[in-house]
Amino acid sequence: MSKKIQTNNWKDKLHEIIYEADTDKGKWFDIILIITILISIILVMLESVETFDAKYHNYLNIAEWIITILFTFEYIARVITIKKPTTYIFSFYGIIDFLATIPKYLSLIFVGTHALVALRALRLLRVFRILKLARYLGASKTLMTALKASRIKIAVFLFSVIVLTIILGTIMYIVEGPVHGFTSIPRSMYWAIVTLTTVGYGDIAPETPFGQFIASIVMILGYGIIAIPTGIVTSEITKTDNKVQTNTQHCTNCGSDKHLDNAVHCCKCGQKLHHD
Amino acid sequence: MSKKIQTNNWKDKLHEIIYEADTDKGKWFDIILIITILISIILVMLESVETFDAKYHNYLNIAEWIITILFTFEYIARVITIKKPTTYIFSFYGIIDFLATIPKYLSLIFVGTHALVALRALRLLRVFRILKLARYLGASKTLMTALKASRIKIAVFLFSVIVLTIILGTIMYIVEGPVHGFTSIPRSMYWAIVTLTTVGYGDIAPETPFGQFIASIVMILGYGIIAIPTGIVTSEITKTDNKVQTNTQHCTNCGSDKHLDNAVHCCKCGQKLHHD
Amino acid sequence: MSKKIQTNNWKDKLHEIIYEADTDKGKWFDIILIITILISIILVMLESVETFDAKYHNYLNIAEWIITILFTFEYIARVITIKKPTTYIFSFYGIIDFLATIPKYLSLIFVGTHALVALRALRLLRVFRILKLARYLGASKTLMTALKASRIKIAVFLFSVIVLTIILGTIMYIVEGPVHGFTSIPRSMYWAIVTLTTVGYGDIAPETPFGQFIASIVMILGYGIIAIPTGIVTSEITKTDNKVQTNTQHCTNCGSDKHLDNAVHCCKCGQKLHHD
Amino acid sequence: MSKKIQTNNWKDKLHEIIYEADTDKGKWFDIILIITILISIILVMLESVETFDAKYHNYLNIAEWIITILFTFEYIARVITIKKPTTYIFSFYGIIDFLATIPKYLSLIFVGTHALVALRALRLLRVFRILKLARYLGASKTLMTALKASRIKIAVFLFSVIVLTIILGTIMYIVEGPVHGFTSIPRSMYWAIVTLTTVGYGDIAPETPFGQFIASIVMILGYGIIAIPTGIVTSEITKTDNKVQTNTQHCTNCGSDKHLDNAVHCCKCGQKLHHD
Repeated sequence: MSKKIQTNNWKDKLHEIIYEADTDKGKWFDIILIITILISIILVMLESVETFDAKYHNYLNIAEWIITILFTFEYIARVITIKKPTTYIFSFYGIIDFLATIPKYLSLIFVGTHALVALRALRLLRVFRILKLARYLGASKTLMTALKASRIKIAVFLFSVIVLTIILGTIMYIVEGPVHGFTSIPRSMYWAIVTLTTVGYGDIAPETPFGQFIASIVMILGYGIIAIPTGIVTSEITKTDNKVQTNTQHCTNCGSDKHLDNAVHCCKCGQKLHHD
Repeated sequence: MSKKIQTNNWKDKLHEIIYEADTDKGKWFDIILIITILISIILVMLESVETFDAKYHNYLNIAEWIITILFTFEYIARVITIKKPTTYIFSFYGIIDFLATIPKYLSLIFVGTHALVALRALRLLRVFRILKLARYLGASKTLMTALKASRIKIAVFLFSVIVLTIILGTIMYIVEGPVHGFTSIPRSMYWAIVTLTTVGYGDIAPETPFGQFIASIVMILGYGIIAIPTGIVTSEITKTDNKVQTNTQHCTNCGSDKHLDNAVHCCKCGQKLHHD
Repeated sequence: MSKKIQTNNWKDKLHEIIYEADTDKGKWFDIILIITILISIILVMLESVETFDAKYHNYLNIAEWIITILFTFEYIARVITIKKPTTYIFSFYGIIDFLATIPKYLSLIFVGTHALVALRALRLLRVFRILKLARYLGASKTLMTALKASRIKIAVFLFSVIVLTIILGTIMYIVEGPVHGFTSIPRSMYWAIVTLTTVGYGDIAPETPFGQFIASIVMILGYGIIAIPTGIVTSEITKTDNKVQTNTQHCTNCGSDKHLDNAVHCCKCGQKLHHD
Repeated sequence: MSKKIQTNNWKDKLHEIIYEADTDKGKWFDIILIITILISIILVMLESVETFDAKYHNYLNIAEWIITILFTFEYIARVITIKKPTTYIFSFYGIIDFLATIPKYLSLIFVGTHALVALRALRLLRVFRILKLARYLGASKTLMTALKASRIKIAVFLFSVIVLTIILGTIMYIVEGPVHGFTSIPRSMYWAIVTLTTVGYGDIAPETPFGQFIASIVMILGYGIIAIPTGIVTSEITKTDNKVQTNTQHCTNCGSDKHLDNAVHCCKCGQKLHHD
């Protein structure tokens, strides 16, 4: 990064500021960007509160236009400073950036498209990208490793839950029927998920004794089922944590591994250990 | 499978396609079967949505007859290609297949039996059987082993929950009484399960201060109780995972495996172990 | 038990049948007792269902008198066959047995005491005592050991939850007030428990934006808090399980412990192990 | 503490009683203080129950004045017996003590400030401070160590939940809209938290089929998400417990502890370890 050819100097500099974070300016850009995104989201929230919007509609509108113009400049800057603009434009974050900027312009032409401004909330995801550079990396890495390692188990689990939901939804549709709020199988499935996950809104609830009996079984089932993802994730986190703490050194004398991180001599034969 | 006697050739071939999945044709049959089952379930769901059924009743009816006829052919094929048809007919999947096919024919004769078409959802369970052949085997095996190993503990746990439910239900029936929605002991037990499992519909909720006090204790109890199945399953999954980890060395003398990772001598015969 | 002095022969025999379970007759007595208790509870349940009671009131009444008389005989038998009757009468199960038998007699004299028949549900607890003799002992022992080992941690946890509940209840009482259903601090505390335990009936729910904000924090808090008892119990069960599997034998040669249950030779030095 | 200069004798003695707990008098002071705090909180609770307050308003008022005066004396004693009064006055507990004492006096001057008496509930937190001296120290220390060790992971987790909440809240605001109760984005976020944490009041619930579909995904998501904090805390508690288990041997040569259970030589200096 230090020895660069001096053509397109300002583009390269801007690229470094926008896309990288090891320089001071890059860090500042990221911090200002997060703050701007947060402000833009707070604006969208405030606007959605009717009583607040009624009072300060004009101020909110002006503030939103300022945010939109800032986002527009950022978007243009991102497009022109990258060598292959299409890699950014059609990337995950590129599409989100576009969707976060365009609704305000659209609202000038089409009525009712203004609600799409709320899509701006998706820009918050960029925070995760910026955080990659931060010191929280270690912790989130452990979490991600644990989740990745258990993804097949979680897939099998989710699939079983969906099959169970369909079967339970169908049974409850037959047992309770449209009279008691189970107006269709998809709606019964919605009830089954609400119950299995122990959310329990109560907007649909079994009313016949037999329906309540089945529901009771479903709940106890859900009780047991909730133990499974917890068990999977816990087991993986424990494993990931243990791996980090012990599996690093091999003894040159007796070949035993699994030493404590701070071990100087081999626990088995007393041979001095070579540190990595 | 390669050197077969050439009598009943087509029956044997069909048997291989329907009941086995190691051949290309067998795999395709399974994939098409799953898709057909999924379509049949989606049809049943759509039909249960009143507004949709009102519009497209005829199309849905035709589609369902097509599915029913396909299922009928499959059922007949399964019966005639197997050597002992009764082993299939009275097997778990045989009964489900029959229950999934017959309601549509019944609806021609008896009015109102049409709702039984929803039993078709049970055919989804066949997916689990087909999945046995898939690569998800490993993950689901770990889950199943963990669940099997902890089944006695889970039984003791479930039994305790049921006893607790009866006692709590009776107490709340006395405390709150029919005036506040606890119209009978079974209904109070339903409330106790809804509360203990932290579902909490709110269709029945204690209204007297004393009832709310007892309910608070029940909830905190449920809080602690939910920890037990989680603890059991997590412990088992961790163990199952660890078992996989220790099974690495084989004794050259007595051939026994399952040694501790740090074992120097064979646990069974005392023979020194070769380290990997 | 085999060589007994022949005085009070029938009392001793009865004592063996009622209080012990190693003989065939004792086992049969326990099984019949559990079935009778279950029937008595089902009777109480059915009676609490108004529509059922209206139809079959007389049959239920007769069945209950039969159960009551059987329980009375059992109670008298328990009292006269034991050497010190007071040890039984004032024991936990003695009191429950008395409370389960007396209400029906009381209902002859006092009107309205009949509801106390429901106390009979408490007799179900005896099932746990009888189960001590059954093969489920192992599993429930692990659970009990795990729960006992973590009882101080659970006490600290419960105490913290209660303090938290009082503080949250008070805050919500000030924020929401009687207008939105938080009519008193105890009732606000009830809400706090309903929310912290993720039960969420919805009978009381915050209505002001600020109240909902605090409630959101409470819920996320409850989310984290539910992890603590789970963590405690899981950790203990894992420990208890591991202890059972490995910590049994000591090598007479090198003194190392922690062998696999099926180990014949010491893992460290190859010395033969003495089996217990 | 034994050889003190005899100036300000009574202040020093009072300081010992109030701020320390190793003496008999100090213990008694703490016990009486906790009881007084509990009584004061029960008074506030009773007063908040309208029917009770209507009957015994005068008695409650007198009792509260007694408590307030006791608290005032305690506050003054704490201020004058400490060398630097400001360290107490502006400490966490100093501010809480002040806020717990002042409202009653304020209610003489300003009408309506009486509700602030409820702030007294915060004094309960002092119980945690006093408990530091009790035997529960060990258990709560394990809990605190586990929670501290996992605080970065929990922070990453909480941050992700908040981002998720904003995005889900915005999506549901667009999908369901003000007609179905999702009147603003903050309110939708409140719904998202109520659902993700599986509390599920049911005061706001999706009514459109598409909204219910998204809600179902949110619930299953919440199902998986609840596994993460549980996994983190369980893993940390297990680790903390294990750490305690490995700290058994001390090296006679270099004095280092923290060896693995199966270590033969000291990990630090290679000295052979004496087995217990």
